[in-house]
Amino acid sequence: MSKEITSREQDYSQWYNDLVIKGSLADYSAVRGCMVIKPYGFALWENMRDALDKMFKGTGHVNAYFPLFIPKSFLSKEAAHVEGFAKECAVVTHYRLKKDPDNDGVVVDPEAKLEEELIVRPTSETIIWNTYKDWIKSYRDLPLLINQWANVVRWEMRTRLFLRTAEFLWQEGHTAHASMEEAVGEAEKMLEVYATFVEEFMALPVIRGVKTESERFAGAETTYCIEALMQDGKALQAGTSHFLGQNFAKAFDVKFSNKENQLEYVWATSWGVSTRLVGALVMAHSDDDGLVLPPKIAPLQVVIVPIFKGDEQKALIDARAKEIIDNLRNLGVRAKYDDNDNNRPGWKFAEYEMKGVPVRLALGARDLEKNVVEVARRDTKEKKTVGLDGIAQYVDGLLLDIQHNMFRTAKTYQEEHITRANSWEEFEKLLDGKGGFISAHWDGTAETEGTIKEKTKATIRCIPLQNQPEEGKCILTGMPSTQRVLFARAY
Amino acid sequence: MSKEITSREQDYSQWYNDLVIKGSLADYSAVRGCMVIKPYGFALWENMRDALDKMFKGTGHVNAYFPLFIPKSFLSKEAAHVEGFAKECAVVTHYRLKKDPDNDGVVVDPEAKLEEELIVRPTSETIIWNTYKDWIKSYRDLPLLINQWANVVRWEMRTRLFLRTAEFLWQEGHTAHASMEEAVGEAEKMLEVYATFVEEFMALPVIRGVKTESERFAGAETTYCIEALMQDGKALQAGTSHFLGQNFAKAFDVKFSNKENQLEYVWATSWGVSTRLVGALVMAHSDDDGLVLPPKIAPLQVVIVPIFKGDEQKALIDARAKEIIDNLRNLGVRAKYDDNDNNRPGWKFAEYEMKGVPVRLALGARDLEKNVVEVARRDTKEKKTVGLDGIAQYVDGLLLDIQHNMFRTAKTYQEEHITRANSWEEFEKLLDGKGGFISAHWDGTAETEGTIKEKTKATIRCIPLQNQPEEGKCILTGMPSTQRVLFARAY
Repeated sequence: MSKEITSREQDYSQWYNDLVIKGSLADYSAVRGCMVIKPYGFALWENMRDALDKMFKGTGHVNAYFPLFIPKSFLSKEAAHVEGFAKECAVVTHYRLKKDPDNDGVVVDPEAKLEEELIVRPTSETIIWNTYKDWIKSYRDLPLLINQWANVVRWEMRTRLFLRTAEFLWQEGHTAHASMEEAVGEAEKMLEVYATFVEEFMALPVIRGVKTESERFAGAETTYCIEALMQDGKALQAGTSHFLGQNFAKAFDVKFSNKENQLEYVWATSWGVSTRLVGALVMAHSDDDGLVLPPKIAPLQVVIVPIFKGDEQKALIDARAKEIIDNLRNLGVRAKYDDNDNNRPGWKFAEYEMKGVPVRLALGARDLEKNVVEVARRDTKEKKTVGLDGIAQYVDGLLLDIQHNMFRTAKTYQEEHITRANSWEEFEKLLDGKGGFISAHWDGTAETEGTIKEKTKATIRCIPLQNQPEEGKCILTGMPSTQRVLFARAY
Repeated sequence: MSKEITSREQDYSQWYNDLVIKGSLADYSAVRGCMVIKPYGFALWENMRDALDKMFKGTGHVNAYFPLFIPKSFLSKEAAHVEGFAKECAVVTHYRLKKDPDNDGVVVDPEAKLEEELIVRPTSETIIWNTYKDWIKSYRDLPLLINQWANVVRWEMRTRLFLRTAEFLWQEGHTAHASMEEAVGEAEKMLEVYATFVEEFMALPVIRGVKTESERFAGAETTYCIEALMQDGKALQAGTSHFLGQNFAKAFDVKFSNKENQLEYVWATSWGVSTRLVGALVMAHSDDDGLVLPPKIAPLQVVIVPIFKGDEQKALIDARAKEIIDNLRNLGVRAKYDDNDNNRPGWKFAEYEMKGVPVRLALGARDLEKNVVEVARRDTKEKKTVGLDGIAQYVDGLLLDIQHNMFRTAKTYQEEHITRANSWEEFEKLLDGKGGFISAHWDGTAETEGTIKEKTKATIRCIPLQNQPEEGKCILTGMPSTQRVLFARAY
């Protein structure tokens, strides 16, 4: 009856794909590496986007829109940036097609070749800082606190729905400041906005930290990050916020006259999260029966399924269900009454479980007589018979309870999966066994970090903020270390 | 003191550009033909987008997201579509850059050539119908009512901010239906949604009509449109809604089994409006002092400017202004208190006039003593002294009054600029003089339409819906005609 889902134990990776496709979040497309975000998946993304957008605006940011294309030469203006981004890019070389003389099709018109190729933006620092040059003259023009919601393209050979696709949707904040302190403060503030969003809306606890030099954004001085843990023990970078120093200001010659009327380079940050978060959400909370979505961002929070024989019963249930739906909507709850008679109740139960709808009410004729209804919550799969009087308020409270319970469950899992390793043997054993974050000493060199990655595929996910200093020895080299860092295999 | 704006009389086209740039709506970018939408312009677009999105959802549509890229071969699958869209396109031919061996820059890696070129979507019928093939099996899957908010690219040689840019933002609805009647109904319904939006939110009256065959969307059976009139007497197509028949279903082999279990091709519509509407808004309402924005979509609806000498006066005004701002916000009004002391009140007055803020309150120390405030409305430039008690309610009512007044003014202008021409001489004289829509008889042939366009640059904007039949003779050929159509020069 229910759509077949591979279990997590059987094949975690296939389980994930099954959920995304059978849960109607996304689909493969005819274009290699690009996905189609289906209406249900897009509604989820819209709820996430709207919540974030409100938080951005609440912290003084405004939205704008910059071009999709970046002149090729821009990418090489910032030395580190070119290393990181001028690689796997979609390159526009021509601007016209013409009829194929040999058939009904079209061919690229060789005469319509661009003088300079255009790159489909993989990120927009370069085009934006080239624009900021015209917008920033004086300290009075600062800070500039701009965000953009956009699509970006990074050519990928091996792709996975939401987690790694050639085109993805994201937001990218790009701010300009008069002082280093202010820019660092901004980067830290936005990291906290991301952490709050992921924890409060996605019910997913994160570790706040900074990246090592090797894992830093190409062109950044400091990359702050939030790291989440998936159910298979692998980590997933859920958002990054970069303090860019004056690197882009220097590359694009963006100076401002300060209050003393002296010219200074502008300080910068950038920060972004993407549709990748949808992948994180799926992998962190769902089970073998389907998606489990946190109420705050679930496209549909409550569904009512009628159970009846004959029109008479149906009419009675209809009336009562519509009343409940109205009451729920008045409380701001996204609720639906599914009386589609193409499908049986059992099919519907499985379908809404698959889609991760947090609360299901099954309303039968006998329930009506007793003035009760069966309430099933998706997170724990508990069912309970509840009186119909005040049911809307009850469900509204239950949604909040589910939200908190999902966070607590994920938090407990996270806490149980941060393990200390004090030797290389312990480190390897943990990686191949329990997984999760491994807190270990590291000698602070990129070389050691690289060797560990080569040997184990584990990377340093972050140096946690407010890390406690601790004397120790690097698990690989035995060289002295002053603090533990968090390693993990990651998506 | 105020930024220089070219007057409409002096140079209408330059006036428009001045408003867009000096009104902070948009800017040119480093990429030929692409613009930067600045925060103020984007906030305006966001208000338009959100209002439309609500109307789409209210009529049962859901959002989704399809790939930016379209395989080249897709464009030639629908015979008419290829003619219309497989021309001025951005073509992606490569997917990797590499270091330039000769300098610090990057070059396209010749080894990373795509087997099939990808086109940056100029519109998404092809990629979407290729996807619908997998989604539609039975009449139970219909109707499919999907909308997408996206960026599209149509290479343009001559560009104008908002009106004609290589990249622009838009929404495109793509719906699938089980019957022709239902699809035609959908196309007509969405035209009405557009008309309602443009009239009620943008305060811009439109003519609802259908396009002639020559002006039809490439691949459509019927193109419905709304046409607006700008202050220079030229028309602007503000939105189109297409009944696509079974053309795309046939091109992409999309069939459904009907209730009788027989396979049929699916019926389709598509409909879209774009950031072009921002250009229409600017040209329709603004004056020689700057933008005039309709309150319903103005990013900022009310600004309070303090007028004072010394800190003591300032403190009293601050307190009262903040109280008014709070009251306005409680009424849902977007209001700002501008006490920035870098600029004098006169500078601020000019600045907010330039930006088209509907209502300005100037609050001085003497006003406070008298318990009054000076209220200036942007549309008529009237100033009035109003009592401070209940000022928020007064302003809220005034915003509605401005919205209605702007519509009435534009409506009067439109009505005065629909003129009948009964001879070729009259027709030419009207075109070169009064402008606007010219209602004239046409023999119904594409040839005559083409000749008129060649001779005068005027096109048939539409055949109005519910046009009255009327016997007459074509203004150009004298051949018999059964109805008048609306001609105009257009953007």
